[in-house]
Amino acid sequence: MLPDATIDDLARALRDGRTSSRELTEQALARAGEAGGRHVFTRTFDEAALAQADAADRLRAQGVVPSPLAGLPVSIKDLFDVQGHETRAGSRALAGSGPAARDAVAVARLRAAGAVLVGHTNMTEFAYSGIGLNPHYGTPGNPHDPARIPGGSSSGAAVSVAGGMAAMGLGTDTGGSVRIPAALCGLAGFKPTQRRVPLDGGVPLSWTLDSIGPIARTIRCCAVADAILAGAPEHGAPAALPLAGLRLAVPQSYVLDDMDEAVSEAFAESLTRLSEAGARVEEAGFENLLELGTLFEGGGFTAAESFHWHRRLLAEKRELYDPRVRGRIERGAAMLASEYMALQDGRAAAIAEMRRRMRPWDALLFPTVPIVAPRLDELEDDADFTRLNLLVLRNSTVANMLGLCAASLPCQPEGALPVGLTVMAGEGQDERLLAMAAAIEDVLRGGA
Amino acid sequence: MLPDATIDDLARALRDGRTSSRELTEQALARAGEAGGRHVFTRTFDEAALAQADAADRLRAQGVVPSPLAGLPVSIKDLFDVQGHETRAGSRALAGSGPAARDAVAVARLRAAGAVLVGHTNMTEFAYSGIGLNPHYGTPGNPHDPARIPGGSSSGAAVSVAGGMAAMGLGTDTGGSVRIPAALCGLAGFKPTQRRVPLDGGVPLSWTLDSIGPIARTIRCCAVADAILAGAPEHGAPAALPLAGLRLAVPQSYVLDDMDEAVSEAFAESLTRLSEAGARVEEAGFENLLELGTLFEGGGFTAAESFHWHRRLLAEKRELYDPRVRGRIERGAAMLASEYMALQDGRAAAIAEMRRRMRPWDALLFPTVPIVAPRLDELEDDADFTRLNLLVLRNSTVANMLGLCAASLPCQPEGALPVGLTVMAGEGQDERLLAMAAAIEDVLRGGA
Repeated sequence: MLPDATIDDLARALRDGRTSSRELTEQALARAGEAGGRHVFTRTFDEAALAQADAADRLRAQGVVPSPLAGLPVSIKDLFDVQGHETRAGSRALAGSGPAARDAVAVARLRAAGAVLVGHTNMTEFAYSGIGLNPHYGTPGNPHDPARIPGGSSSGAAVSVAGGMAAMGLGTDTGGSVRIPAALCGLAGFKPTQRRVPLDGGVPLSWTLDSIGPIARTIRCCAVADAILAGAPEHGAPAALPLAGLRLAVPQSYVLDDMDEAVSEAFAESLTRLSEAGARVEEAGFENLLELGTLFEGGGFTAAESFHWHRRLLAEKRELYDPRVRGRIERGAAMLASEYMALQDGRAAAIAEMRRRMRPWDALLFPTVPIVAPRLDELEDDADFTRLNLLVLRNSTVANMLGLCAASLPCQPEGALPVGLTVMAGEGQDERLLAMAAAIEDVLRGGA
Repeated sequence: MLPDATIDDLARALRDGRTSSRELTEQALARAGEAGGRHVFTRTFDEAALAQADAADRLRAQGVVPSPLAGLPVSIKDLFDVQGHETRAGSRALAGSGPAARDAVAVARLRAAGAVLVGHTNMTEFAYSGIGLNPHYGTPGNPHDPARIPGGSSSGAAVSVAGGMAAMGLGTDTGGSVRIPAALCGLAGFKPTQRRVPLDGGVPLSWTLDSIGPIARTIRCCAVADAILAGAPEHGAPAALPLAGLRLAVPQSYVLDDMDEAVSEAFAESLTRLSEAGARVEEAGFENLLELGTLFEGGGFTAAESFHWHRRLLAEKRELYDPRVRGRIERGAAMLASEYMALQDGRAAAIAEMRRRMRPWDALLFPTVPIVAPRLDELEDDADFTRLNLLVLRNSTVANMLGLCAASLPCQPEGALPVGLTVMAGEGQDERLLAMAAAIEDVLRGGA
């Protein structure tokens, strides 16, 4: 039942006694052990997960159901601490660092909501790319075509959901690491406003840009998980906002460049449907996005901050790093303090400018990734890797750099390779954005 | 009347009709124009001040008295924007930058409280030293001995109060720039918790460490000004906290090293009096302070952040800077981003450790400056300047580095050169600290 079921479907099945947490967890773990589960997890927590499942079933029998995720298998990106298990962030350099003493805050919230933690999911080493390759633990295949990349860095998080190994995958998003794999795997993903979910207990990539969010079957599934992650008082999915009259901007900027035919057609078709459903979809100038380029020079915040975090580990275990990741971290070594402060100033100015430009709009729409998932064999050459990685990250990273929230949801025709549609809104607009995205999801699924 | 009067004295005299704001302001401006006022102001706002005074008198006649500072002359350190006047921060490099479009937040709050802004006070160029020398605008003499330094960087702020040119001087404190001149000029000075007073509209030295606070005749005067600067709902001076049973720690660390005889005796005598008054004054180990040294390497936050702010100005006007200031700013040029982040991590850890160590204590006591004001002729040699500057800043800078609040109040015997006693407490304890310091002031003045 798991692969196609939403959180709501599963919660109802549990409520009605049509399944048990034990059964769902056994199914999830079994799938993780099959061919489709290859490289999806760096480690499954079999024994602990089954014990959690049994406890959830027993509590449910007593009427204790703390949230819609109660008793449901969820997966945890390998960079979050889970008490008693080693956090490796997809690396060999952290192997042997020992079990975590306590859960990361996001993990603790999922656990308190009754979710069953099935395992640590694979990821790009230290979350440093949008592609999802991992030379140490293997690269999970794209569920729609195993010869293609899953997207990253939360690669295993997405594939665990697509493959019925979890009802939701906990991910992180520094430049698109939740939304890219969601888009390329045909799922929904949500990057909240950064301060919405505390970062404590995760291996950082860039503490300026890191955000914590879910990958799940639908936007409503993401909304349920997000409410739990944010410590919100209500856990139900939001009512969809009426689309009629909503002002949705299509930013005329580089986010529309370099689309392949599949993305271009799916995006255009989506806009048409949303207009037909009554939304005011309009082109709008967002030339300011062009100026963001300077904020990525020298590797930007990500290189500077990851180098600072990795300094000691690199000194000890440099040879254990993926060279493609290490080279990008090490760009941060040469950055001057004044250059770093200039990045902070530049970002603050860009955020203020974007806030002004977004004022007339309820949300912005653009393709999450301008191309469908590249084939693994397109990435063998380092130059191709660099070019495609930048292209894959290009659009999603806008939300992180500008402190916004954004969701990605599938918009491709039935049976086609997945294409993600991004809905992006202002800082703190998380719940309203999810309600808009749920309405958009209804329109796009209704016609698919 | 101004030189010896407290804010409370002056407010009463105005209320009772024994003087007027016009009269007080004319007196203040006249004193600023006399020999004792030499180098105290970089500019007085004569015309605007008299207009403000007349307005205050007229409003008072209508019963409009917004605060205890209403109608009282106050001075503004030259780094705060005052609408219509040029901000130069004691430099030649900012001469010609044009009049400020609006008041700094702290200045606007003083103005809204009815204070009369008499002028911009002299300061160490760009606030970068604790000594108070200024080669461009001259160095105001210490009011107790004009051959000695006034202390800095808020040199003019202190001398304007000591010389009856203002009831209160608005200063900034990045490593002691309010408390040092207060201590060396025989006044009270208060450095609040940083976030208590917004920094907007001031020329920054280090936005990590900068705080805004008053220099005034007494702790109670400082408390009145601080409440206004903090936007607090009540403007009255705090009731003194009973001393009996208060746990006051004397930190056994370098803050007690290198005291000259005058400071050592005044400090010891103060502790005796406070014990006699019922306070529990005890020695306590604060070895952790020794570890702060690494946070100043390479110039620390101040060099890094001031270099970032000054980069463009240095490129254009390098030769206009005081070489002693420029050299210290330029140390920040070579700092790496990762070194800067290491400073931030180190500071966060040091703050957490200090919070633990301060837990058993109501406040800490130590000499604000371990020596009385040096003579100007002791500072001619660059090596002597550097040594004495570091010694003068050594103790006060602890509060900035550790995110604390601290007040300095006079503790020397009658007629002796001024010695400052620091009372330091935890982040956010500002009002409680001022109430304790007011009680300490009562004891020390009572016996003087």
